[in-house]
Amino acid sequence: MFKINDNYLKLPGSYLFSTIGKKVAAFTAANPDKKIIRLGIGDVTLPLAPKIIETMHDAVDEMGNAATFKGYAPDLGYEFLRQAIVDNDFKARGADISIDEVFISDGAKSDSGNIGDIFAQDNKIAVCDPVYPVYVDTNAMSGRTGVYDELTQKWSNVIYMPCTADNNFAPEIPTETPDIIYLCFPNNPTGSTINKAELQKWVDYALKVGAVIIYDAAYEAYISEEDVPHTIYECNGAKACAIELRSFSKNAGFTGTRLGYAVVPKELKCGDVSLNSLWARRHGTKFNGAPYIIQKAGAAVYTEEGKKQTKEMVAYYMNNAKLIREGLASAGYTVSGGVNAPYIWLKTPDNMTSWEFFDYLLEKVNIVGTPGSGFGPSGEGYFRLTAFGSYENTLEAIERIKTL
Amino acid sequence: MFKINDNYLKLPGSYLFSTIGKKVAAFTAANPDKKIIRLGIGDVTLPLAPKIIETMHDAVDEMGNAATFKGYAPDLGYEFLRQAIVDNDFKARGADISIDEVFISDGAKSDSGNIGDIFAQDNKIAVCDPVYPVYVDTNAMSGRTGVYDELTQKWSNVIYMPCTADNNFAPEIPTETPDIIYLCFPNNPTGSTINKAELQKWVDYALKVGAVIIYDAAYEAYISEEDVPHTIYECNGAKACAIELRSFSKNAGFTGTRLGYAVVPKELKCGDVSLNSLWARRHGTKFNGAPYIIQKAGAAVYTEEGKKQTKEMVAYYMNNAKLIREGLASAGYTVSGGVNAPYIWLKTPDNMTSWEFFDYLLEKVNIVGTPGSGFGPSGEGYFRLTAFGSYENTLEAIERIKTL
Repeated sequence: MFKINDNYLKLPGSYLFSTIGKKVAAFTAANPDKKIIRLGIGDVTLPLAPKIIETMHDAVDEMGNAATFKGYAPDLGYEFLRQAIVDNDFKARGADISIDEVFISDGAKSDSGNIGDIFAQDNKIAVCDPVYPVYVDTNAMSGRTGVYDELTQKWSNVIYMPCTADNNFAPEIPTETPDIIYLCFPNNPTGSTINKAELQKWVDYALKVGAVIIYDAAYEAYISEEDVPHTIYECNGAKACAIELRSFSKNAGFTGTRLGYAVVPKELKCGDVSLNSLWARRHGTKFNGAPYIIQKAGAAVYTEEGKKQTKEMVAYYMNNAKLIREGLASAGYTVSGGVNAPYIWLKTPDNMTSWEFFDYLLEKVNIVGTPGSGFGPSGEGYFRLTAFGSYENTLEAIERIKTL
Repeated sequence: MFKINDNYLKLPGSYLFSTIGKKVAAFTAANPDKKIIRLGIGDVTLPLAPKIIETMHDAVDEMGNAATFKGYAPDLGYEFLRQAIVDNDFKARGADISIDEVFISDGAKSDSGNIGDIFAQDNKIAVCDPVYPVYVDTNAMSGRTGVYDELTQKWSNVIYMPCTADNNFAPEIPTETPDIIYLCFPNNPTGSTINKAELQKWVDYALKVGAVIIYDAAYEAYISEEDVPHTIYECNGAKACAIELRSFSKNAGFTGTRLGYAVVPKELKCGDVSLNSLWARRHGTKFNGAPYIIQKAGAAVYTEEGKKQTKEMVAYYMNNAKLIREGLASAGYTVSGGVNAPYIWLKTPDNMTSWEFFDYLLEKVNIVGTPGSGFGPSGEGYFRLTAFGSYENTLEAIERIKTL
């Protein structure tokens, strides 16, 4: 008789965004005349940039022509894309990454989940709290997190690093030594960042204790301040301890286009074994590449026009972020994030819980955000708003909140 | 100190297709004037059909327009595609599959590898021998296969079901009871099929012993004979014991476009737990959908024009298959496959090993095929040729082989 992976059964039943969806659907059914503004999920709304559209049309035509048709892609991804990544995302930042350390994927969510495959089950992970749920859930699925306690909302075998107003939303080196450390900067959900000196401390710590850092830099394009690192490889020694995950979803609006990449440096080793070779094996065996058309679209992001156009998109969203941040602050809310990230993190007023504030915003002013507690216990009492809506909706949302 | 998944270290070092690549590269370097014809890897060569190209252009334009832009796709895939699949691939065959049993993916290779995630480590797998390497390698990566013996080329904890001329390349019910049975029909690499009554025996057996069948039907479009099932769900009871994997790679030329799907019926349960709910959780947590443009392309395959055009492509390749099959037979080779599949499986002449025949074909007539032993020990003494080349090259290849 076959047996299922019963680690799946340990996962808490309700997923954050499905609970939100149900609540919004119920409200809409009861109030069909109300215009809801959604500043909840981190999905982009602007169309793809003209240069990307033009490039995809060309690539589609190539696929329709026998002379230029493309079958299976190279295992790690097309060199034209990996070279553009190396030159623009790393060399330009003084980070020495070679093209055979870059693995093109269908997005950072897949990579965040799949990267666990190359590690043993008995590694102990450390995560920020609050945290992007995929890191924890995928480790739970592979049996790495112990058991879940509904009361504390914590897994028994995970090191939680609280990120709250008390520490300016920056995790502190944990007292218990982890094997795998997940860091995400600019952070989802808090929108916070740390500077290069602070990130260097994490690299030094990982090297000292023999931990590996999974560094999620999906929101890197939103960094506006000077001393915030765009890649962990700006730090000395990071190539010997860190894997970096990158996405085209937020810098170029690819949430529905699907493209990302992982950097697994050859220096990163466990004994004699390079993690680069393990990931190459995993990549070549359980994945068969991102579509040619989409890899061409990704390369277009790095052209002069592509850079200009995608920067304008980021600026559009960051203007929304500013609007939310300043609007809420002037209305008396305690806010953070929104300077180097498209997320604004606010303290719920009047000691409301995150879900109480969710219901309050939905019912009173018909605005959907994300309860901070959905990202972990230290998110309780906080709330996330995203800058990915339209300017008009964002403006109206803030006006509505000001009436409360 | 972090620990790697050391199951990866148990994998035999050299991957079949990389060894072939190296041999071909060495030959080309030594013989730059020789024109090599590749009938090795199962990659398509015809461009995408006009209806698909047209649909992708439209979808690209939608992504460039704010009013029609698409962000994150629904977790299971767009309904327009899943409905077309249900209607055309199942309802039309008398199989009752509902749209929430269909999970759109980036291809059958990913699904073949990832499906293992929802099963416990201590399941025993049974595979045909020879076999598509991904089934075994991905189970090895998750620690399910024991240790590899270089001498026998077998894993200690895998049930091998030999498929040779002795049993007409059809696996027999194994004497040891497996938990998970991988079946692929039309078969890669042998090109063989089994009829509906024979497949029904496997379904009955799986139901009796509580095994789950992972049924890979990636080559379904190549079936030309009447009594060969196109889906396992044509068999009674299959919904309670089988997962089916499907691909757009071979029926519509999507090897570089990447689209597939898995069917996980709700009736398929382990105790009270539906595997459909486990796969939904896996799909929603470790994957974020195939690109909208690609899902639209997939739906175009099911339009009247799309069906007509992709059928013509399949007919083109099947004409090549006939050419290879009949040409080799007339030259005195013992051949099978090529009737319901794009693969021709031949007995190597003069008791040559598979690799000896590989070298012989490459050196004497500059043709690249795939050594049968690369697919498992029972593939020794066999050789695979594919029908995915151009008509002209296929014709020339057969003429060359006839000169031997």
